[in-house]
Amino acid sequence: MAFGELDTMAIRQNLTVLSNTSGSVRRISVLGATGSIGQSTLDLVSRHSDLFSVEAITANCDAKGLAALAIRHHARIAVVADCAAYADLAEALSGTGIAAAAGPEALAEAAARPADCVVAAIVGAAGLLPTLAAVRQGRRVALANKECLVTAGELFMREVAASGAELLPVDSEHSAAFQAIGASQPDAIEQIMLTASGGPFRDWDMARIKAATPEQALRHPNWSMGAKITIDSASLMNKGLELIEAFHLFPVGVEQLSCVVHPQSIVHCLVAYRDGSVLAQMSSPDMRTPIALALSWPKRIDAPTKRLNLAALGQLTFEAPDETRFPALAVAREALAAGGAAPAVLNAANEEAVMAFLDKRIGFLDIVGVVSDTLEAAHGLNLIASVDRLDDILAVDANARRLARGFIENGR
Amino acid sequence: MAFGELDTMAIRQNLTVLSNTSGSVRRISVLGATGSIGQSTLDLVSRHSDLFSVEAITANCDAKGLAALAIRHHARIAVVADCAAYADLAEALSGTGIAAAAGPEALAEAAARPADCVVAAIVGAAGLLPTLAAVRQGRRVALANKECLVTAGELFMREVAASGAELLPVDSEHSAAFQAIGASQPDAIEQIMLTASGGPFRDWDMARIKAATPEQALRHPNWSMGAKITIDSASLMNKGLELIEAFHLFPVGVEQLSCVVHPQSIVHCLVAYRDGSVLAQMSSPDMRTPIALALSWPKRIDAPTKRLNLAALGQLTFEAPDETRFPALAVAREALAAGGAAPAVLNAANEEAVMAFLDKRIGFLDIVGVVSDTLEAAHGLNLIASVDRLDDILAVDANARRLARGFIENGR
Repeated sequence: MAFGELDTMAIRQNLTVLSNTSGSVRRISVLGATGSIGQSTLDLVSRHSDLFSVEAITANCDAKGLAALAIRHHARIAVVADCAAYADLAEALSGTGIAAAAGPEALAEAAARPADCVVAAIVGAAGLLPTLAAVRQGRRVALANKECLVTAGELFMREVAASGAELLPVDSEHSAAFQAIGASQPDAIEQIMLTASGGPFRDWDMARIKAATPEQALRHPNWSMGAKITIDSASLMNKGLELIEAFHLFPVGVEQLSCVVHPQSIVHCLVAYRDGSVLAQMSSPDMRTPIALALSWPKRIDAPTKRLNLAALGQLTFEAPDETRFPALAVAREALAAGGAAPAVLNAANEEAVMAFLDKRIGFLDIVGVVSDTLEAAHGLNLIASVDRLDDILAVDANARRLARGFIENGR
Repeated sequence: MAFGELDTMAIRQNLTVLSNTSGSVRRISVLGATGSIGQSTLDLVSRHSDLFSVEAITANCDAKGLAALAIRHHARIAVVADCAAYADLAEALSGTGIAAAAGPEALAEAAARPADCVVAAIVGAAGLLPTLAAVRQGRRVALANKECLVTAGELFMREVAASGAELLPVDSEHSAAFQAIGASQPDAIEQIMLTASGGPFRDWDMARIKAATPEQALRHPNWSMGAKITIDSASLMNKGLELIEAFHLFPVGVEQLSCVVHPQSIVHCLVAYRDGSVLAQMSSPDMRTPIALALSWPKRIDAPTKRLNLAALGQLTFEAPDETRFPALAVAREALAAGGAAPAVLNAANEEAVMAFLDKRIGFLDIVGVVSDTLEAAHGLNLIASVDRLDDILAVDANARRLARGFIENGR
């Protein structure tokens, strides 16, 4: 490494370089508008009506909820994925001048409409196609869907590079990494450390964890989230999936990604540099902070979140994750290292296992057991090849779910 | 605030924008080479001889020490401030091809020599003129001298702006703020929070602090520094001086600067943004981390410092500073708010008072008492006017010292 003619600036010059204040309004589309991320996005958009307008909003099947949001936020078009919900949507929007549409194709068309930022907040594999539709238009995509990167990371990032799309992570940990990395050159980074709350079973012994009920697992100490992700937090699989996402988002190798347990969930990620410096991003647990950044970057806009008061907080604690009581992290890391379709298999098996746990068909520790068994079986069946096309990924996903259901039904 | 055509990039584009690897070697001059910051700088330079070469190095009067450094690091010229040390320097360097010089003018000339970075590490008011000489050449100046900003902040920053010099802070707290601010626009910043270790008297009651001896005050829990700055850490005056520096370095108002006590000295500064995000810089207490950044920015180079291990560390604690037991912080903040020459008076009076305390002529709490009394007397004598010229500042400094010595000698 050596120095050439670097584009350097004095501090004050550096600080003012982004102070462009000309007046255009950014059009925002929200895929998955009725969910938690979607509603937080629309909350911010309505607080900054001088900066943002709403282009398209979509939902799965909640026609009434979507219509109400479309009217309140003056959307141009509202789309439900479920064709059966079209009549309700059209009726609720009749006379408003807001277009209504339904079905997977309409969803992808809505995602591809001209917009300055598409917030991709559809949960699960259903988010893959519409998010890719937005990416292919070269849009700014504020990514809140995990599956795009976990199941189709290589393919997805190739499309991002080909289209010149701007990918801005909305997950709190990845938004934190994005901020802590800033304009750093890739070879400056030694390590990216994602924090994990440790979940409700952080202090529990193995026997207690084994006997844990869905009700116990759903009591997340810091964040209020959906059931699936809350169970993933309790098993630490959530952190494993996030390591896979981070691998695709940031220019680091598997061995440069780690996880540290931080029960207060105040520090979201730490990035260590080769000069010994560590940059960390912190905030109260409120998704409006990372969403605001994704909408406004490289500027920042006001977000009405609770401000951090470190003196009142008193302490931030950190501990190494216990991979004996929480084996999911190691299993996810192995899947990432194996590459190819292994992360897609991991994700599919985990979704099936978590559903089975919530239905009380398997125990808590069986979740990671099913995932491990499914990965092993998929290896044996040669399902873990490099996946180049979306159809291959969808096929792997279906096969992995079938395998996982077999392990669940046959009691492993 | 509104959005126009912003120069935005996808994450990976963003990360590679600084990966210029062409091969020129940066020439470094070190003002104050025999001190702690100077030696740490030369340690880094010698570890990266492919990146850096040494141009000029200077010292106050340690001719032998300076000559040894000049020879070891292949400097072009070595300069002692004290003319009486010239003969020793010239003798030690005879036959080496390294030029020797002495005196204040030679010092300023050395600072103004062509170099890619001038490390300004002369302690005290003696650093003002040579640092300004480097600034006036429009150099990158790695600033480790406090007095430039504390006593002559407005004047100094005007010179920086006029010459286009690049000012990079070397103080760990200001380097941390610089990193946590990155390329943020000024109006994104809500608050800059400098951390303070709290010093050796953090848990002491008022009576014990009042009776504290120099030996007790010199036991700093985390950093190994000179006597003056260690006493300033014990009184928190050091943090007050740093708030004044931060005010000049960063685009914030007095009310946006605060201080939080953090006994582990791991987090050096936190910057809070309007979207609720807080970016913090952390590192082991080793000055080679901020020095490396100042030398290599916007890249980063390897520094052989102890890496942070948060899980091993366990916890980071924070508390509000107690301004009753440590009144220096409030006194410094008042001087900053008063503006004009008040910070110069504060600094001069504090230097005199700390010397008197080290000589056991006054008690520990008398330090801030002398500073307060001197500020009040200076106000009464109309010494706290706006200062436009360096001579005015030097005159204020001399007058403030005279006043402070009066208070010290007359027992307040």
